[in-house]
Amino acid sequence: MNAEWIAVDWGTSQLRAWAMQGDTVLAQSQSDRGMARLSRDAFQSALLDLIEDWLGAEPVDVVACGMVGARQGWVEAPYSAVPSAPLPDAPIRVPGTDARIRAFVVPGLKQNAPPDVMRGEETQISGFLATRPNWDGVICLPGTHSKWVQISAGEVVSFRTFMTGEMFELLSEQSVLKHSVGDGWDADAFAEATADALSKPEQLAARLFGLRAADLLHNQDKATARAKLSGLLIGAELGATRPYWLGQQLAIIGAEGMSQIYARALQLQGAFVDTANATQCTLAGLAQARKLTRQTA
Amino acid sequence: MNAEWIAVDWGTSQLRAWAMQGDTVLAQSQSDRGMARLSRDAFQSALLDLIEDWLGAEPVDVVACGMVGARQGWVEAPYSAVPSAPLPDAPIRVPGTDARIRAFVVPGLKQNAPPDVMRGEETQISGFLATRPNWDGVICLPGTHSKWVQISAGEVVSFRTFMTGEMFELLSEQSVLKHSVGDGWDADAFAEATADALSKPEQLAARLFGLRAADLLHNQDKATARAKLSGLLIGAELGATRPYWLGQQLAIIGAEGMSQIYARALQLQGAFVDTANATQCTLAGLAQARKLTRQTA
Repeated sequence: MNAEWIAVDWGTSQLRAWAMQGDTVLAQSQSDRGMARLSRDAFQSALLDLIEDWLGAEPVDVVACGMVGARQGWVEAPYSAVPSAPLPDAPIRVPGTDARIRAFVVPGLKQNAPPDVMRGEETQISGFLATRPNWDGVICLPGTHSKWVQISAGEVVSFRTFMTGEMFELLSEQSVLKHSVGDGWDADAFAEATADALSKPEQLAARLFGLRAADLLHNQDKATARAKLSGLLIGAELGATRPYWLGQQLAIIGAEGMSQIYARALQLQGAFVDTANATQCTLAGLAQARKLTRQTA
Repeated sequence: MNAEWIAVDWGTSQLRAWAMQGDTVLAQSQSDRGMARLSRDAFQSALLDLIEDWLGAEPVDVVACGMVGARQGWVEAPYSAVPSAPLPDAPIRVPGTDARIRAFVVPGLKQNAPPDVMRGEETQISGFLATRPNWDGVICLPGTHSKWVQISAGEVVSFRTFMTGEMFELLSEQSVLKHSVGDGWDADAFAEATADALSKPEQLAARLFGLRAADLLHNQDKATARAKLSGLLIGAELGATRPYWLGQQLAIIGAEGMSQIYARALQLQGAFVDTANATQCTLAGLAQARKLTRQTA
């Protein structure tokens, strides 16, 4: 089975590849050989391990987005400055590849003031907008580093990044809270913590220790603690992004579970939310990026 | 050299012991065998390794405070509930010790609502108040888990704990910010970040990612990033504790460097701050705890 082209989402900790025929997925494959684990000369073999069966005699286009384009990545794809279309520039060709592939990396976006960057989300945004002409509003992309992106007339006007997901991981797995936070969920506790953080964001560090103390003194359920921890962090994020979501057309692009959590938190504040599948947006965006490679070839 | 008694500060990650003659330190010793690294049957040998040279034919009192009294410690010393004196109950005798020592562990304090706990700080507070009769006000004890403690008529009325120090460590050493935060200090950047967090605490997670982006886009100095990270976290804590410090008599008990940072942040907000040496307060408090063991013996 030969691919017409190959789509690649190459993040910090994960590598995913799809064999494509036009917009149709023929096969997919993934590994944990993310950008952070690879030296520059290890990228190609990490990719070939996943896609070798999809290659034939003719060179195949490989189009990759994400941290693979960082300075420490396979090839540096310099940021484009906003305001701009999500994919304003042609992807960067990786030099000196195996003869069976023509590999390209999508540039990220940067904002000079306040300083901010994205790599990967620009591709999802482009894919999201591809099927929604004239869509204006705000896109939330929850994740390790959540993004809030203001869209107008097909352009990314501004954006902000929040370390919410990374803080959740560090606090639940590496801090003293790891003893008090467990699996499971408690929707009421999440709603309460979200509202609490929205109204008193400065109390975050005290509320966090309170999760430990509630366990020690009152045997608080570990699933309740998990939901409260998530609610405190997401509530603070919603407090900071209120101008982004209040009275705006709003869409969430993310993995199913995380999107649902953000959608619920926003609905509790009275916001109307649309959701879109992150993988579908990525693939649609990479297809658009591929068109840009052909215009410059 | 025989000690009259032995003072011990036994925290999560560190063990410190002092050979005492009345209030005078004859010798001191320390190791990294904190409570978190020890199983219950390993506490005594970890201690004897430090103090063996100070022991004689007669049993010597050993008085310990800190996490050594937690459920997973040497012996559980149940919390006393506030409001109460900092040392309301006699220390707990450790059963079955080596015949050369009589070991005691100081109970911590708990607050049922909002839930909160301390172990070790109650001893420092007692030592601080010992030389300041009729002192009313607020004590700040910065550290991994900062405490703010309201004192009135010799009692701990209420307190709150903030995970500020632990968040600083996790973010600077384990998160994506580890690439952008380095050694050194920038007093102006600290002051600016403190004021920023006081006025917009909900922006914390975005300001944190901004430290990474400012490095990537503008090569921000790594010492500046360190000072800003500290200022953002401490500024949020000061925003939450404003009712504790605004117009109150205020003292900081802590290690020299950390106390200076908190004192500077508070002075920038117009607060007047007294500082006290943490080790001296611990030793004075342990001397008082020892008196309580004699009353019950």
